Amino acid sequence: MSGRLAVVGLGPGDARWLTAEAEAELACAQALYGYLHYLDRVPVRLGQARHPSDNREEDARAAAALRHAAQGAQVALVSGGDPGVFAMAAAVCAQIEAGPAVWRSIEVAIVPGVTAMLAVAARAGAPLGQDFCALSLSDNLKPWDLIERRLDAAAGAGFAIALYNPVSRSRPWQLGAAFERLRRQLPATTPVVVGRAIGRGDEDVTITTLADTNAVTADMATLVIVGSAQTRVIPRPGRCSLVYAPRLTETVRA
Amino acid sequence: MSGRLAVVGLGPGDARWLTAEAEAELACAQALYGYLHYLDRVPVRLGQARHPSDNREEDARAAAALRHAAQGAQVALVSGGDPGVFAMAAAVCAQIEAGPAVWRSIEVAIVPGVTAMLAVAARAGAPLGQDFCALSLSDNLKPWDLIERRLDAAAGAGFAIALYNPVSRSRPWQLGAAFERLRRQLPATTPVVVGRAIGRGDEDVTITTLADTNAVTADMATLVIVGSAQTRVIPRPGRCSLVYAPRLTETVRA
Repeated sequence: MSGRLAVVGLGPGDARWLTAEAEAELACAQALYGYLHYLDRVPVRLGQARHPSDNREEDARAAAALRHAAQGAQVALVSGGDPGVFAMAAAVCAQIEAGPAVWRSIEVAIVPGVTAMLAVAARAGAPLGQDFCALSLSDNLKPWDLIERRLDAAAGAGFAIALYNPVSRSRPWQLGAAFERLRRQLPATTPVVVGRAIGRGDEDVTITTLADTNAVTADMATLVIVGSAQTRVIPRPGRCSLVYAPRLTETVRA
Repeated sequence: MSGRLAVVGLGPGDARWLTAEAEAELACAQALYGYLHYLDRVPVRLGQARHPSDNREEDARAAAALRHAAQGAQVALVSGGDPGVFAMAAAVCAQIEAGPAVWRSIEVAIVPGVTAMLAVAARAGAPLGQDFCALSLSDNLKPWDLIERRLDAAAGAGFAIALYNPVSRSRPWQLGAAFERLRRQLPATTPVVVGRAIGRGDEDVTITTLADTNAVTADMATLVIVGSAQTRVIPRPGRCSLVYAPRLTETVRA
């Protein structure tokens, strides 16, 4: 009996961002695994086992899902956003590499989704419309000086920067330190987009500048986009400003 | 009468990657605009006007869609992948900034989608599972030396790199030059994923190394992901290898 593991991206908070493929994978799975708050977003179906787990248990969750699939089951492991961006797909690969040889013969399907930075960018205009990078501010598994070097490299070369995992209870200072670092290289007027709980009822999007980021409050549901020196803001009467990266890069200051 | 412009991401080739929100926007639009091959992917609906245009006409297409919305229509402008990543959302913002003041009062909704790099990454494993950047190799609107500086910065800092627009009929040498540039900084064994026509019937995914990229053939439907020195490849008997970025970044060589 041949099992199968689908690693399914749910997209950000809003169910309207689920793809048809993800919907189909969730419907046909025999067992569901995932961080409990992501699993809560999947409708309960009769005959489908649900295995919620806590936030910090990525490796154990991936291993449990693989073990179940190796027994011949059709398993779906859900992930917020896109499973390939700071999420479960890499954890599954790491477990396959480290685990029993039989796990390498399990059929694995990664089901892509809308990752948070795309949803936040969409709310603001097109701040990721030109070259950009995505950087996690979590220094749980990489040293902070590497994060600083990456911030320097990205800002210095003119990439817009999407900051994932800006803050957690155990990492309260990293976002402020990142803004401070970026202010060394980028103009004070550089636009910054702060998106919180995108796609949920309490969604909030704030457009500010690098100079004013001291006032930014963030939590685990926050994603931050820092523009480049090229990024433009269009004020609109009675509407939110639009933030975008122009296609024509005129100066080569970067 | 108040018009509305939705800039809708169709995702890569496969209709299963359309989100529910994009589907709803396409269904309720009075008029559709888009590059003709993207419009071909949208089912024909009675009473819905279709305005296909050629590939190189982004600005004119965005302006036409805004003009139509300013007349009070519900307009959808379709984009491949995600409209915010090297696609139509930035063109729309640029037209709003440059155009008549009344365009700033049009309701604009950007509808995010699965961008090509996420779909290619999903096919390969999780090559974008840690810090990464997205870089267009088109030097139509930015100088080539800026692209080289960005390649250097990204590779030097240990980002995985997704290369959009690697090749076109008028830009035959840029991808080869980019690989050559990256070979200066990255090990010859660095994994490279070449995805072509992802989600279409003729989809092809090739996993190779930076040393072997001379043999890579690419076209306008190709997206390339270059790993970092950390990227790992897991061979699997009878299955494609998995390529992924491990979460634990042990060395700070970057």
